[in-house]
Amino acid sequence: MTATLPTTVDPARLQEVLDGRWAHVRRDAREQLSGPGYAPVHGESVEEARERVTRLTAELAATGRVSLGFPVEYGGQADAGGSVTAIEMLAHGDLSLMVKAGVQWGLFGGAVQLLGTRRHHEAYLRDIMSFDLPGCFAMTETGHGSDVQQLRTTCTYDPDTQTFDLHTPHEAARKDYIGNAARDGRMAVVFAQLVTGGEGRGVHAWLVPIRDGRGTPCPGVTIGDDGPKAGLLGVDNGRLSFDHVRLPREALLDRYGQVAPDGTYTSDIENETRRFFTMLGTLVRGRVSVGGSASAATRVALDVAVRYGDVRRQFTAPGRDREVVLNDYLVHQRKLLPALATSYAFAFAQEELVGRMHDLHTAVHERGEEVDEAAQRELESRAAGLKAAQTWHATRTIQTCREACGGAGYLAENRLPQLRADTDVFTTFEGDNTVLLQLVAKGLLTGYRDAFGSLDGWGRVAFVADLVRETVLERTAARGLIARLVDAVPGRDEDVPLRDRGWQLKVFEARERHTLEGAIRRLRRNASTDGMDPFDVFNSVQDHVLRTAQTHVDRIVLEAFVAGIERTPDPDARALLEAVCDLYALSTLEADKGWLLEHGHLTPARSKALTATVNALLGELRPHAVTLVDGFGIPHAWKQAAILDEEVLRQEATHREDTAGRTKGDTAVTLAVPPAQ
Amino acid sequence: MTATLPTTVDPARLQEVLDGRWAHVRRDAREQLSGPGYAPVHGESVEEARERVTRLTAELAATGRVSLGFPVEYGGQADAGGSVTAIEMLAHGDLSLMVKAGVQWGLFGGAVQLLGTRRHHEAYLRDIMSFDLPGCFAMTETGHGSDVQQLRTTCTYDPDTQTFDLHTPHEAARKDYIGNAARDGRMAVVFAQLVTGGEGRGVHAWLVPIRDGRGTPCPGVTIGDDGPKAGLLGVDNGRLSFDHVRLPREALLDRYGQVAPDGTYTSDIENETRRFFTMLGTLVRGRVSVGGSASAATRVALDVAVRYGDVRRQFTAPGRDREVVLNDYLVHQRKLLPALATSYAFAFAQEELVGRMHDLHTAVHERGEEVDEAAQRELESRAAGLKAAQTWHATRTIQTCREACGGAGYLAENRLPQLRADTDVFTTFEGDNTVLLQLVAKGLLTGYRDAFGSLDGWGRVAFVADLVRETVLERTAARGLIARLVDAVPGRDEDVPLRDRGWQLKVFEARERHTLEGAIRRLRRNASTDGMDPFDVFNSVQDHVLRTAQTHVDRIVLEAFVAGIERTPDPDARALLEAVCDLYALSTLEADKGWLLEHGHLTPARSKALTATVNALLGELRPHAVTLVDGFGIPHAWKQAAILDEEVLRQEATHREDTAGRTKGDTAVTLAVPPAQ
Repeated sequence: MTATLPTTVDPARLQEVLDGRWAHVRRDAREQLSGPGYAPVHGESVEEARERVTRLTAELAATGRVSLGFPVEYGGQADAGGSVTAIEMLAHGDLSLMVKAGVQWGLFGGAVQLLGTRRHHEAYLRDIMSFDLPGCFAMTETGHGSDVQQLRTTCTYDPDTQTFDLHTPHEAARKDYIGNAARDGRMAVVFAQLVTGGEGRGVHAWLVPIRDGRGTPCPGVTIGDDGPKAGLLGVDNGRLSFDHVRLPREALLDRYGQVAPDGTYTSDIENETRRFFTMLGTLVRGRVSVGGSASAATRVALDVAVRYGDVRRQFTAPGRDREVVLNDYLVHQRKLLPALATSYAFAFAQEELVGRMHDLHTAVHERGEEVDEAAQRELESRAAGLKAAQTWHATRTIQTCREACGGAGYLAENRLPQLRADTDVFTTFEGDNTVLLQLVAKGLLTGYRDAFGSLDGWGRVAFVADLVRETVLERTAARGLIARLVDAVPGRDEDVPLRDRGWQLKVFEARERHTLEGAIRRLRRNASTDGMDPFDVFNSVQDHVLRTAQTHVDRIVLEAFVAGIERTPDPDARALLEAVCDLYALSTLEADKGWLLEHGHLTPARSKALTATVNALLGELRPHAVTLVDGFGIPHAWKQAAILDEEVLRQEATHREDTAGRTKGDTAVTLAVPPAQ
Repeated sequence: MTATLPTTVDPARLQEVLDGRWAHVRRDAREQLSGPGYAPVHGESVEEARERVTRLTAELAATGRVSLGFPVEYGGQADAGGSVTAIEMLAHGDLSLMVKAGVQWGLFGGAVQLLGTRRHHEAYLRDIMSFDLPGCFAMTETGHGSDVQQLRTTCTYDPDTQTFDLHTPHEAARKDYIGNAARDGRMAVVFAQLVTGGEGRGVHAWLVPIRDGRGTPCPGVTIGDDGPKAGLLGVDNGRLSFDHVRLPREALLDRYGQVAPDGTYTSDIENETRRFFTMLGTLVRGRVSVGGSASAATRVALDVAVRYGDVRRQFTAPGRDREVVLNDYLVHQRKLLPALATSYAFAFAQEELVGRMHDLHTAVHERGEEVDEAAQRELESRAAGLKAAQTWHATRTIQTCREACGGAGYLAENRLPQLRADTDVFTTFEGDNTVLLQLVAKGLLTGYRDAFGSLDGWGRVAFVADLVRETVLERTAARGLIARLVDAVPGRDEDVPLRDRGWQLKVFEARERHTLEGAIRRLRRNASTDGMDPFDVFNSVQDHVLRTAQTHVDRIVLEAFVAGIERTPDPDARALLEAVCDLYALSTLEADKGWLLEHGHLTPARSKALTATVNALLGELRPHAVTLVDGFGIPHAWKQAAILDEEVLRQEATHREDTAGRTKGDTAVTLAVPPAQ
């Protein structure tokens, strides 16, 4: 893996690998959705942005591309993976459109499709696909962000009238941040506590009209506007309150729980909590979409910053024998290239996740097979972990790209401000990232069992220790290959080159297992401490628990990268990807070298060598930086950065020549810097 | 230092210490500038924001508060430190107003005052103070962000007409990102290469009319608009190009370089580079202001997030014996409290910096003393380092606060989006942070000599090794106290409690020295490597060089914190500050534990103990979190966060009671999370 890289690599070969299984969907989006109408727009007022994005959403519906995820019998294409990929492709362009489309077809349409039954499908799916029926997904409440199971809106069945009574008991129970609510929504899927026969049955969902054909709120429905936001100006987020709104019995989306005319409740899933999570589990697509979309936006930012850094000078270089541009500086490389490598890693991990999701979905919903519970839980865990990892990566990297472009990066005309602002909330919606990592950790700690579902569960952690091994060793796609690489690592770690893939895989795995075992040990110790506040049993090790999830996600991502390389036929592209994978693996380890040293996974000497190796990799990859962003295959029209205009690039080049002619001495460390404006 | 903390601490006692030497300026701002007119406004169009901020700037001028930094003879108060403090106070409110004020009175006014001579003062200072003459500071060029010494605009003297010819030779040489340019500016201080007698004399500045009384651009002046930006919508940044604009000989701001009618050039400072840096050095105030303002904005964000986290619930806690709010979670504490401790540390460091700046300024400009070159260089270095540290802290922390407030943090009505967007460019303007750290490092490497001013200098690093010791040991304010604390540390580091202040100081110092010596060793080795590209001599160790600067800044900040505690009379406040200082010191070391382990400054066992101690400190400080933000003394009117309204806080509290009454079992690790909207 330390062979010399080819001088040039054809980016088309990289793109083929990245495009993967849904290459046709990506190709179609590049060809059909890169016209001027789909380019992001900046400087609009909230009203202008909303109007434009609503119009675009309708136009998108008219192209028929939004039907990918819906059943064939209603005009869809039954391609769950394709639908998520299509959303991800939209995220290269206007992110408000992406979110609006995600709300309409992913969340709203997806809930009707997956929580509803034939009568709901017959009545609504076609209008949902055509956007003739704009809808909302009303789950989150002002007072309940993450704790959805405890939401406060109630929906009480009255057998006398055979209707439900939907009610918002107090202000904190209003639905909040709801997309499509403030302006366009005609119906909403509303989540509330079902009460029938005087008994609570847990959270269910209803289809609720919220506006009539003329846009007037329905009786009993109060609609508020969340107003201006940091970004996503084109999405009309709002608030919904219900004052004893009457709903017909058929309004209940009753796939997982039914209410008979007399109020009798039935469900295939007896346990309330399990039923709730099964319902939520069907909606995993949204979380997968958000992670993929965050990564798409990140790639656009990297494309802009890497290209700009490849022409932009900062200081005159000593001597005149070469032209120094931003990308030549080690610290600039440190900012951009590990992030670029991580973006490659996530592209492969996301591809694998989408494939799993698609296959599970198809088995159950198209072929009518039984749900593979373990596979479903693992999918949900990975969707959660990769959503958190990709969205934090987006926030960090787009910010880095903004700074890497200096003052130009702050101007709206160069796209980065909007990318930054629009994606900011991705770390929060579809699950706060910290909560999601906790979910991942819970899965690891319990071996996907429900042992921690109750308070006492946290006290009984001891017994799960023996489940750890099998859970951790559950591997990703290329498990055979990975096992071979790991097994090939010679005995003494210290003698193995840092760029040995088997060693890297082994350390990622050991780190995960070590961290997980440590978390279990601490939980067990706490649980056996007399008088420890039950909350503190968990809370005092929360940092450790989240680390467990983080190390798990890191390993999944590395393994997906390895599998992706294995699928790469072109030897040059493959060689380049090997080096990019080295950079991902080693910069990830470098960032955690404190822990690795603490726990004897690195010696001090090897830890220093790690930093030197990362620096050497940066030097190797630097000539390929533009090739690597070319490999993302982002049409120019989606970038919308004035600094990437040909004329500007030409000026930068001219100005370089101009400078080269009059350089005198070294100002590479000049003290001068410009003022605040 | 590990004594139990008092149950309650009076925040007024904390505020007194933080308010420090310019307490009167802070008090005045809180009382007079916290009316509704000064509150930040969101959701405006660019034009609305510009109009409002221009109006406010004029109103601010009318209050007379902007005269602080100007000479008494022109109606000013000759209080340089007060003027910087006043700008910092503005940064709690509308950041566009802060920047606009900084441009008008700090940069534009400051340049006329400090680079000009009596005739310029007589003619312009009064109109500048009154804002009757809005002006620009036109240094940065599109093609020259950081390398100001190489800027391309020329100003050529013609003895026949006794005029200058100001010219923009090509597009990349246009002035860019210039505040006050797009809309309001009537004059600009323009930096250009002076040419007289056919010889280049380096960068100088001229006072140039750019618009007439009716707002029409002057002949030969082309004015562009930078358009919408990520934030700071109220600041009219623009572009200026000059097509052979004629200027009278008197337009040259000639304090440091004069052109006689016949074109003869004279200057007290013979060396062109030295002259350039002397001129820039007089403008250090701007950089000091930006760092302080970034910290003010960060404190507002922390105030919002800490207060919200103190009432906001996430999940139902196990058991009913206590109400769990966000601030109770360890990971939430990990997000907010070290950042809060760092904000305290920076407040003390900034106070010390402003004091130094004030005293040096007063000595030279009021008492006419000779410039103390070493003190001036050190001031510039600290201003650069603290600007970089405080602005990066702002970017990171405001983002963390946004995420800590979840979906509410994304709504403009809760202030955080605007704080985030407005301060984003602070890491870039007044010097790109990376370039500034390089400047700091250069100072350390050369012991403030100019040895690295030329290419060869980088090859001659060997000789500076012996300068290191004295440079590093140059200490901040409380040097006697710090020396005593360090000397009191017993021999074997491993036995010293982690919360021993002397040990912390010793490690910060050792880390700085060790890093600096390593950088020198590497530079020396590179320089003696035959055939190494001169650029690579420096570039291959750039990461190490920047680390040197970072560790230096960390030490300065810690020492300032120690000095600040020493000035705290109230024993309870003092005890609390000791714990906050522990958290600053130990979380800083924890973040760098990889390096500390690599280099033997920590054993693995002690490194683990470090993490445990930080966690213990979080638990100790958690009950004081709100007290600590109260200590910032930010008037409610400046916060402008709907989630801090009394009604909202009351609802959160009510809703808590409501929940407490119906809790069932532990959902602390519930899997449910809300969807993307």
